[in-house]
Amino acid sequence: MDVELKEMLDDLQALKRSLPDPSHQASIDKLQVHVEHLTNLAQYAPARRSKVKDMSAEVVDSNPYSRLMALQRMGIVENYERIREFSVAIVGIGGVGSVAAEMLTRCGIGRLLLYDYDKVELANMNRLFFRPEQVGMTKTDAAVQTLSDINPDVVLESYTLNITTVQGFETFMSSLRKKTFRPKKEGSGVDLVLSCVDNYEARMVVNQACNELNQTWMESGVSEDAVSGHIQLLIPGETACFACAPPLVVASGVDERTLKREGVCAASLPTTMGVVAGLLVQNTLKFLLKFGHVSPYLGYNALKDYFPTMEMRPNPQCSNASCLERQKEYLLAKPARDAAAKAKMEAEALVVAECPIHVDNEWNISVVDDSELDRTDGRSSDALPEGLTHELPTADEFEKQPTPETTFNSVDDLDDLRRQLDALNAD
Amino acid sequence: MDVELKEMLDDLQALKRSLPDPSHQASIDKLQVHVEHLTNLAQYAPARRSKVKDMSAEVVDSNPYSRLMALQRMGIVENYERIREFSVAIVGIGGVGSVAAEMLTRCGIGRLLLYDYDKVELANMNRLFFRPEQVGMTKTDAAVQTLSDINPDVVLESYTLNITTVQGFETFMSSLRKKTFRPKKEGSGVDLVLSCVDNYEARMVVNQACNELNQTWMESGVSEDAVSGHIQLLIPGETACFACAPPLVVASGVDERTLKREGVCAASLPTTMGVVAGLLVQNTLKFLLKFGHVSPYLGYNALKDYFPTMEMRPNPQCSNASCLERQKEYLLAKPARDAAAKAKMEAEALVVAECPIHVDNEWNISVVDDSELDRTDGRSSDALPEGLTHELPTADEFEKQPTPETTFNSVDDLDDLRRQLDALNAD
Repeated sequence: MDVELKEMLDDLQALKRSLPDPSHQASIDKLQVHVEHLTNLAQYAPARRSKVKDMSAEVVDSNPYSRLMALQRMGIVENYERIREFSVAIVGIGGVGSVAAEMLTRCGIGRLLLYDYDKVELANMNRLFFRPEQVGMTKTDAAVQTLSDINPDVVLESYTLNITTVQGFETFMSSLRKKTFRPKKEGSGVDLVLSCVDNYEARMVVNQACNELNQTWMESGVSEDAVSGHIQLLIPGETACFACAPPLVVASGVDERTLKREGVCAASLPTTMGVVAGLLVQNTLKFLLKFGHVSPYLGYNALKDYFPTMEMRPNPQCSNASCLERQKEYLLAKPARDAAAKAKMEAEALVVAECPIHVDNEWNISVVDDSELDRTDGRSSDALPEGLTHELPTADEFEKQPTPETTFNSVDDLDDLRRQLDALNAD
Repeated sequence: MDVELKEMLDDLQALKRSLPDPSHQASIDKLQVHVEHLTNLAQYAPARRSKVKDMSAEVVDSNPYSRLMALQRMGIVENYERIREFSVAIVGIGGVGSVAAEMLTRCGIGRLLLYDYDKVELANMNRLFFRPEQVGMTKTDAAVQTLSDINPDVVLESYTLNITTVQGFETFMSSLRKKTFRPKKEGSGVDLVLSCVDNYEARMVVNQACNELNQTWMESGVSEDAVSGHIQLLIPGETACFACAPPLVVASGVDERTLKREGVCAASLPTTMGVVAGLLVQNTLKFLLKFGHVSPYLGYNALKDYFPTMEMRPNPQCSNASCLERQKEYLLAKPARDAAAKAKMEAEALVVAECPIHVDNEWNISVVDDSELDRTDGRSSDALPEGLTHELPTADEFEKQPTPETTFNSVDDLDDLRRQLDALNAD
């Protein structure tokens, strides 16, 4: 635009010189004022930052990666720059998916694959990311526009399609298989698939694709009343797949499309969707960059700020044939996994044994077994002096609490299934 | 811009008619092509949506409030449109404050007061909200630019100042007192203050202002290693104020500015800051619109997805004189509070007593006391048939767990205080 305006000014200057009549010159002057004003306006038009070759840890205001590379110096992540090698696919660019895409873009992810077929509407403005001037654009186009301005280093691929159609599913599968970004990568062409869709049918399609490709994925959802949500990690064969625990609507044979009433829309909030997107991408970072503990399932109840966790094992009677295949492979690989785990434990034990042991014990210091101090039944500990109480359970104590596990011979609560169903019919 | 380009086209047309020489006409034609091209480009320039007089619940794609008004139909919020009456002040428009401001803007808050003195840098691009083309602008100007485009219905007031200076504090106080937006409001001119600053000094200033004004506020923070954060509700006189529990750095008399080393910056992540902003604004909505339970303190440990909660009572030895005044007022008002609570309970009991009672009991249905079925000590319940276990504690059971309370004669853990200090020196 700047170039174009400069050219116009030159042309007007030349025209002015060739026109001797003063009345014509006045017209030209007026045009010049317009062009100069437009040049000023154009200065406020988006200017993109240039690409960065390597992620620098240099602490200067002009470095977009300094606060991320600081994670290494703080001892949180071993090698942050590895993030540029990873590809993440996001299915559904709505209230959760768009924010997840922006977070990964700002973190400098290598490549993002975006799937959606919807258009941006004013009714979407109560959630983060899309702006009113993007109304009418496809969500994929609008997302690429915003994300490429924010971080031109990220490779963006967008697919404006419905994965639940035959043609859409084929394109979806081939895009996940494509390995041009990192040709030597094992398995599929992506490191993780994030499902951010708003209906059960699309989730079952993502589940089918990931089971076929043996692709680890994460599922997310927000309830129709906007005040609860969840994320879930799905590793084919190792954890329950999405078809392992069918919600009631399938069990009773009702087509979900008949459940949605005309003229009725679900509620949504930027807060709940922002929290769910944040938890989803935080677990994505932990999974890709290998730090912390990746939650197998994490719920969010906004009314009570309650965050339930659980683990779900695969269902040996799952209706999905690819899931059963992955379960068989996982069981067959058990001896190899056990041997590797044993070798790792032995190597770690060797390191501990090599540590220096203090022979002298001048001060009679003795090691107290931690378990004696632990409160395991919720009652106050005897180990504290009278009048003192613990403020909070520590994160370590929290981890020691037995994690409830869902197995398929102990589903004793229909209400629970109904709540899961509500969460699935999310927006 | 559109008007200007149209005018230029008309001028060129007139000029063309008055110039008989074909060579001049060719020049004009070239200029016309330029202007037409610019007109096309201008279509993609930000177009603002017009203001909306009332919040409509109508389910159409063009209604920016349909998904928020749906919260009423879903039974979550009694009167969503009341949000337009509220004023919220956000101190610090960084990684948490800017996202909080965007969430409240998209929720249609009545009025936002924004305070910051920093400029946007490329080094901020690893967090949500600011865009590379805003580098160099003040954070307040950039925020107003983005927020007014997103929702022109929100009244935005921005203050480019440092609240820790004498002049800045005075302007801060008078802006909080001003009641032009809702002249009949009791107390100060704002309904809630959100502290989203990154240092201890600024937090103490917000604390001082809110204690003086008897103003409820919420504090937020993210740790320097970017993997934990917290939010906290502070009601002068009723809960601990920020000076009630002095962190170690104050206790040991070290000036925090000497702790920050040259050339070293804190780590930060868009995920952690997005989650903290989401939890902060979610609790803001619960507080303003009176639904759910507002958390007195909520922590977020990202490595373990652990969310500790606690309550802190005011310290009768607090060093802040205004806090002690508010504590005295709160104690003096106790008889009136107790009487009001008793009257409310009696009114509710009357409603229950007026409910119809079934006299016939053909099926011998008896009411089982819930407490018999509750597990209160963490051990498995006897109420379930053999072989069945509960999957998860319900949110109700979670609430019944005793909330740990910090009192100031039971601070038994220096490490805990040190962790709190780390969280305060946040970025």
